[in-house]
Amino acid sequence: MKLATRKNGTRDGELLVVSRDGTRGVVAHEVASTMQALLDNWDVLAPKAENLYAALNAGECKSAFELDISTLTSPLPRAYAWIDGSAYINHIVLVRKARNAEPPETLRTDPLVYQGGSDTFLAPRDDIPVADLSWGVDFEAELAVITDDVPAGILPENVDGHIKLLMLVNDVSLRNLIPSELKKGFGFFTSKPSTAFSPFAVTPDELGDAWQSGRVHLPLESYLNDAFYGNPDAGPEMHFSFRELVSHVAKTRWLSAGTIVGSGTVSNEDISKGSSCLAEKRMLEKIKTGEFKTPFMQYGDKIRIEMNKDGQNIFGTIEQTVVERTMEHRK
Amino acid sequence: MKLATRKNGTRDGELLVVSRDGTRGVVAHEVASTMQALLDNWDVLAPKAENLYAALNAGECKSAFELDISTLTSPLPRAYAWIDGSAYINHIVLVRKARNAEPPETLRTDPLVYQGGSDTFLAPRDDIPVADLSWGVDFEAELAVITDDVPAGILPENVDGHIKLLMLVNDVSLRNLIPSELKKGFGFFTSKPSTAFSPFAVTPDELGDAWQSGRVHLPLESYLNDAFYGNPDAGPEMHFSFRELVSHVAKTRWLSAGTIVGSGTVSNEDISKGSSCLAEKRMLEKIKTGEFKTPFMQYGDKIRIEMNKDGQNIFGTIEQTVVERTMEHRK
Repeated sequence: MKLATRKNGTRDGELLVVSRDGTRGVVAHEVASTMQALLDNWDVLAPKAENLYAALNAGECKSAFELDISTLTSPLPRAYAWIDGSAYINHIVLVRKARNAEPPETLRTDPLVYQGGSDTFLAPRDDIPVADLSWGVDFEAELAVITDDVPAGILPENVDGHIKLLMLVNDVSLRNLIPSELKKGFGFFTSKPSTAFSPFAVTPDELGDAWQSGRVHLPLESYLNDAFYGNPDAGPEMHFSFRELVSHVAKTRWLSAGTIVGSGTVSNEDISKGSSCLAEKRMLEKIKTGEFKTPFMQYGDKIRIEMNKDGQNIFGTIEQTVVERTMEHRK
Repeated sequence: MKLATRKNGTRDGELLVVSRDGTRGVVAHEVASTMQALLDNWDVLAPKAENLYAALNAGECKSAFELDISTLTSPLPRAYAWIDGSAYINHIVLVRKARNAEPPETLRTDPLVYQGGSDTFLAPRDDIPVADLSWGVDFEAELAVITDDVPAGILPENVDGHIKLLMLVNDVSLRNLIPSELKKGFGFFTSKPSTAFSPFAVTPDELGDAWQSGRVHLPLESYLNDAFYGNPDAGPEMHFSFRELVSHVAKTRWLSAGTIVGSGTVSNEDISKGSSCLAEKRMLEKIKTGEFKTPFMQYGDKIRIEMNKDGQNIFGTIEQTVVERTMEHRK
């Protein structure tokens, strides 16, 4: 099942069910008013949404309409929790090297996560408003899951049933704010402005056999200014699976329905696969030539992120342009 | 105006208006169904709530009832953002010393904040469920504000009007999980389980002249197992005021209505004022005697946090007992 949220003048938008091919939608009034309301009562409401999805795909929905991605918000326009992991070892090693920091000693035994800001997400086609380019704007292409209520202390082997939906992420980062912020010891804050998510949130069965043991075995594609940038496989090199990430973040407290848990920037050791962020490419340049060459994003730079399977764009495309922050963007 | 949220079987509870003396309440159906709904449309709805508050205080509310604090949830049972500062220099210096870490170089110039988990808050009388006492359970008594929508890049001098409500906080911490977690570089996560807030969220005018330039000039009282533990003044030694904390966290993105921003553990240099957490007391013992004496919280230990002015318990009392985590607490 594919779901989306459409702008309707309210803070939480209206829930849509989207056809498998991503071209048509229907307002899911009869299921729930919002994505959060569906997640709050998933077991009761999801079967109704699945029925609507089947009818939509069969062309039996009279109220179906052609979907305009620019009318969509993030599947959850605001959420109660956005926790981002960093599960690709290759990314951690390269990015820490770029800022002359060591990978943590527990790199391979203890998942690295940070608590992100979840009150203001960007829509999949929203501009990325930045007041100062010297902050060093970067994109980070990732995957994320949305859970229902997860009990504290859950073991990895019991996580699967709690993963209700998956999305793509652009975890926008302000690279030049990171070193001084992390030096303070409390993690990211101003260096992580609002995050964007894919147009569609999809149930794991939409991934077919690409969804295995809490990993998505498909390439995650990024295009910078319409040129190929990277297509690393999100599966094999995800050191901690979503099972392990969710278990980790539920170690000392329970999670409530609608919690978003991210994979971290998808990254492969094979450099022919490109990267999912600028920081990695810059570090590879530094290793090879002694200097960073690729600049961080400038005003007008456009990033496109999507994931395809059997010719189908599973999550729809995140497509965002960096722009100068104006009064309007300040909300 | 004083507000609270009462359990009603839903995730967000029902909004109450509470009398100035904290003894009576009325369901605020006519204003908004939930605290978040009120915050989402504050300018329109708050005057209606103020009218109800005036009627309640005048004894003119027929549907008023005697308030039972144990029926309340956190004013926001779940929120879209909970960002905790650490604005009391004395606390930072002592606590870092306790874990053999240095205060950040920018201690006095750049506010220290972390993004907390906001999807599962504890009610003011909820037990604190902990699976393993070796995690080192501590309380932290703090103040927090709730904002409306705050524009990105706001200057400190423009923050006041965005602070709609204030609360007390028990920022429960698992001290022995902190060193290894902070060593990874991404800040707190498992070391900060669910946070508790005071029964009442109050508008700044309830503090009278104790609310000055984004600081609350009143002692914050803590009692451990019913014995006096600390009453440091929350005002003069708050190095960064709420104006500066809110401005800092809105540097690179806007904040949405219902964002909670905390002060960090209230702490005074004068040791006769006691402390607002165990870690500080332990460090003072270590400095004086060479060893930590006071243990972290054990099962059955009770913490009580409140703030009084002119004989009135402004926010109601947070009162929580540490208990062993059972299946029931795992939710």
